[in-house]
Amino acid sequence: MKKLHIIGLGLLGGSFGLGARQKFPELIITGTDANQKNLAEALTLGIITEAKEKPDADTDLVILATPADTLGDLVLKTLEQVNENTLVFDVGSTKAKLCALLTDHPKRSQYLAAHPIAGTEYSGPKAASADLLDKKVLIICELEKTDLHLKEKAYQLFEALNLKLRFMDPEEHDRHLAFVSHLSHISSFMLGETVLQKMEDDKNIFDMAGSGFASTVRLAKSSPAMWAPIFTENKENILNAMDGYIANLTAFRDKIAAEDSKGLFDEMAEINKIRDILDLGK
Amino acid sequence: MKKLHIIGLGLLGGSFGLGARQKFPELIITGTDANQKNLAEALTLGIITEAKEKPDADTDLVILATPADTLGDLVLKTLEQVNENTLVFDVGSTKAKLCALLTDHPKRSQYLAAHPIAGTEYSGPKAASADLLDKKVLIICELEKTDLHLKEKAYQLFEALNLKLRFMDPEEHDRHLAFVSHLSHISSFMLGETVLQKMEDDKNIFDMAGSGFASTVRLAKSSPAMWAPIFTENKENILNAMDGYIANLTAFRDKIAAEDSKGLFDEMAEINKIRDILDLGK
Repeated sequence: MKKLHIIGLGLLGGSFGLGARQKFPELIITGTDANQKNLAEALTLGIITEAKEKPDADTDLVILATPADTLGDLVLKTLEQVNENTLVFDVGSTKAKLCALLTDHPKRSQYLAAHPIAGTEYSGPKAASADLLDKKVLIICELEKTDLHLKEKAYQLFEALNLKLRFMDPEEHDRHLAFVSHLSHISSFMLGETVLQKMEDDKNIFDMAGSGFASTVRLAKSSPAMWAPIFTENKENILNAMDGYIANLTAFRDKIAAEDSKGLFDEMAEINKIRDILDLGK
Repeated sequence: MKKLHIIGLGLLGGSFGLGARQKFPELIITGTDANQKNLAEALTLGIITEAKEKPDADTDLVILATPADTLGDLVLKTLEQVNENTLVFDVGSTKAKLCALLTDHPKRSQYLAAHPIAGTEYSGPKAASADLLDKKVLIICELEKTDLHLKEKAYQLFEALNLKLRFMDPEEHDRHLAFVSHLSHISSFMLGETVLQKMEDDKNIFDMAGSGFASTVRLAKSSPAMWAPIFTENKENILNAMDGYIANLTAFRDKIAAEDSKGLFDEMAEINKIRDILDLGK
């Protein structure tokens, strides 16, 4: 592997660049970003060595790391630009629409649908780090549709970055992620909003916030440019998750209103089971 | 200060004990817990030096650290047991009902209403630590109703533990805490519940959970024995906070359903302001 091209030099694209440079010091890494400030920062930070609008013909790997709603057009455009020895993969948070779009594409075998479960509430090249992806899960969808030899190029990178591969179909991916990632972000944003609204009457409300609040509201700092497209791209699954969440909140609210102490206790004791499940993953 | 007595030897009561022992090695610390296992552990861990049902007559300070709904009766009972040189303070998460109950009590001046903004999702004596309270905020309500000289005993302890004191009236305390603490716990419990329900169909859902989910669901590990009473004690304020939260979720849901990308972006960009506010507190 000699040449890597990255489109979208934010948190994820930038971390792939920094990680790849650390593991493959000889690798030529080119790239671009629609935002000129991000592009300049990515050069300064050494995420890429050269700014290039499009990948060279002999590029081994192209990583697409732009917002979810831009990836469809970008995959199509990029597949047109590259020659037959190039593998293109995206790192978007939604997979079903993308995979459906590519199903009958003549160059489908040059595309790999990937999603690393890694991130922070910060965004942009400055938020990127060489070890963001270290030991994180990377979900791959429709692996069998990608060319066996081209796949090796991506695997070489994934292995070097210590990514742990998981395989599933794109619909399953989107359904799962709505619950364990997208809903978390929404619950956090809405918590932040509710407390900000309250602050309009009570100025000093944040003085009283402890580590529990900081933890639950952390994701409300996340990038709207990244998340708004995810919410619309994965609409059906997210609405399903939100409806379940709102129904649970409403039922819990009614238990509090009825001062049903035993009901509240039992429900929370049941939810405590999540301890074992979360600890199992460690 | 020679003698300290702690009733309720869990996370908070235990941390007061361990912290006090570290700062005042000569201090005699007695205490009790309704749970015999907790009591035995507290002795083993050195939280207390002797188990005692009730405080000695010459005890300087009594700390009440039992669940919120038990504190009313416990304050009344304890004030009856102690002599005029003892100060009794509680560390409960709700303050309005307690302060109202004590308003016309003949020994009101021997009571201090306190609430340290400190905790973790774990509970019991083993979760206690000598530095849990270090540099944390301690809210004190109706300070003027406590005897000036007795207050000094508590201040000596608070200062040694590096607690940062804040003063407010009990209603304000309960209103604020419903938003910045109690609602966080509910949002987290309900998130955990929603994902556990989903797991019934999709066994491997937690494989895909990243650090964002771990952060927002952390409080769902919290103790039901502690939290059920808080929710009923602070019912009105919590229902108010939850109604705001559910209304925000419902409106956000409708924006997703309408694929209102701009509306979603703008709303999240507005909520991002919480970054500056949270960072300000650092």
